[in-house]
Amino acid sequence: MLPQDLMEPRLGLATKTRAPGSPAALPTETSENALNALAALVADDFAACNRVIVEHMQSDVALIPQLAAHLVAAGGKRLRPILTLASARLCGYAGGTRHINLAACVEFIHTATLLHDDVVDESQKRRGLASANAVFGNQASVLVGDFLFSRAFQLMTADGSLKVLKILSDAAATIAEGEVLQLVTQNDLSTDEDRYLEVIQGKTAALFTAACQVGAVVADRPLAEEQALAEFGTAIGMAFQLVDDALDYAADEAALGKTVGDDFREGKITLPVLVAYHAGGPDDRAFWQRTIEESEHTDADLKRALRLMAETGAIGATLRRAESFAARAKAALGVFPDSPTRRRLAEVADYTVRRGR
Amino acid sequence: MLPQDLMEPRLGLATKTRAPGSPAALPTETSENALNALAALVADDFAACNRVIVEHMQSDVALIPQLAAHLVAAGGKRLRPILTLASARLCGYAGGTRHINLAACVEFIHTATLLHDDVVDESQKRRGLASANAVFGNQASVLVGDFLFSRAFQLMTADGSLKVLKILSDAAATIAEGEVLQLVTQNDLSTDEDRYLEVIQGKTAALFTAACQVGAVVADRPLAEEQALAEFGTAIGMAFQLVDDALDYAADEAALGKTVGDDFREGKITLPVLVAYHAGGPDDRAFWQRTIEESEHTDADLKRALRLMAETGAIGATLRRAESFAARAKAALGVFPDSPTRRRLAEVADYTVRRGR
Repeated sequence: MLPQDLMEPRLGLATKTRAPGSPAALPTETSENALNALAALVADDFAACNRVIVEHMQSDVALIPQLAAHLVAAGGKRLRPILTLASARLCGYAGGTRHINLAACVEFIHTATLLHDDVVDESQKRRGLASANAVFGNQASVLVGDFLFSRAFQLMTADGSLKVLKILSDAAATIAEGEVLQLVTQNDLSTDEDRYLEVIQGKTAALFTAACQVGAVVADRPLAEEQALAEFGTAIGMAFQLVDDALDYAADEAALGKTVGDDFREGKITLPVLVAYHAGGPDDRAFWQRTIEESEHTDADLKRALRLMAETGAIGATLRRAESFAARAKAALGVFPDSPTRRRLAEVADYTVRRGR
Repeated sequence: MLPQDLMEPRLGLATKTRAPGSPAALPTETSENALNALAALVADDFAACNRVIVEHMQSDVALIPQLAAHLVAAGGKRLRPILTLASARLCGYAGGTRHINLAACVEFIHTATLLHDDVVDESQKRRGLASANAVFGNQASVLVGDFLFSRAFQLMTADGSLKVLKILSDAAATIAEGEVLQLVTQNDLSTDEDRYLEVIQGKTAALFTAACQVGAVVADRPLAEEQALAEFGTAIGMAFQLVDDALDYAADEAALGKTVGDDFREGKITLPVLVAYHAGGPDDRAFWQRTIEESEHTDADLKRALRLMAETGAIGATLRRAESFAARAKAALGVFPDSPTRRRLAEVADYTVRRGR
């Protein structure tokens, strides 16, 4: 359940006791527990996957493991590989290590895109630490990203399933298209909601889709289960990115490990911005045009942006969209019989919405 | 045959009639003819390959084909895909289109690395036109590079051969490692020749190796022929990069379409620099340390660098190394019976050394 103020976006968040810019989501104890519980369920596989990740990021060229280790040390949640492992478990896959290698492969694709994203966004922070590009430079980040991407394809090739290769290479192309589309829509307030959803479907949800789908593929399950897991992954990915975009205007900076207002400064078109822009009066629209389209902004502007988000219920509206995707994710699990894995996966769908840090 | 002054590096190029910095290689009419002759031999396949390239760089995200078309318009020679097509022909492959799709795939990997290289090197020119990053920005170049790389893997996956997938995904990882190694050795004059050769083997030769090898694989030829073509590709790739590195200090800028002195300004460790550095006296070494290691240089410094290259025969020594690789490439073709394709391939080995523009 979302807190009441997030369910009622038009009430005006600024009139609540929370100051604009303070965390908009629930206390996250339960949320973190949901992911931890899923990770615990696949603990052995997860440990094995982490070993595969460390092993395959090695190279005689010392800078490669150094830079990769910087990201690993920054401690991502490894949500995507955990989803691959849990999906395989849900489908009854047993006796092999294919899911472990493919989970590592999914994480490598994710890490490669993070490295390139941070270069593209000129990010200074990632997961609360200095970003790889800030420490090692853009050049190394681009090239090590390419290396990890290649490693992912080596792992897939070693797996040997053309079906898996197709799912993951299609996902990789879709991710890149989504990233380019995001670049094209940047600073453009004429971008509509459908276009925004297309961007996040590509840049984020596509990998979640593939991560879950390959779990069913390695278990050689009927198409209905494969499609259900693909749908589950897509919906979780959409929810995840919607929440990410909300948190960029509402997170507790220290807890989230990312800087509030990054999207604002970069002129990224996200749902909170679109909601606030379209709900605003002429003055507010002029404000958004100046800040998002013309990239002119002062520190005071971020405060005003946060206030307008609150007044228009933009964060709440975004989180409600996320919640509806989470509900869709849970519904997709309906083709599977009840089991601890299915219950944990459903909880993780809620987690994607509730993670407030 | 190389011109005499290139064969005798210690004679001192500066005492010749050519001014320092003028083209160091033969008139290139014959050279261009060699590549054209090979392209003519596989003309139908080459035309089909170019169609596959254009078709697969399409995307609903308009910036992707726009940026890709910019590179295509800049008119690369497509040496690598031509080598794939010719290798398949040499191996008697007939009746299918696998070599055409894989040639396109090789070109996509190459194009993706070019896009990322230009970002890493902050290049302003590519093939005589403004580079993609200069026109479309670094962000678009990184992301469209990722897209083309993904497209390459989609093409390979559609081909369906795990052996081909292994050859090309291994090559992609080796290329990335070579690029990172080059970054690490940048500005470091303690880099030795072996390390330099390792860099160019990775960043350049690996893709030539794979490009030629897959030609034998699609034709399902015995391992000896596959290995011979891999060796041919490696040697041609090494020769190609050595000449490229020589031309960076010796090319006719207008004809080559690249800026003379790029490597110098970037502090890249290439064989011409290593030869000149190690052959120089204390003053010269101090000059190289200041310019290459500490990246302090004026316009006059490039002139001095070119003069030192000439005095130490560095360009000639580099081209002789290239020639020995070209000879090795031709020798590798010995396992194949004489044929027009074999003769044209051998001529292209010479072309890699002779291409003076």
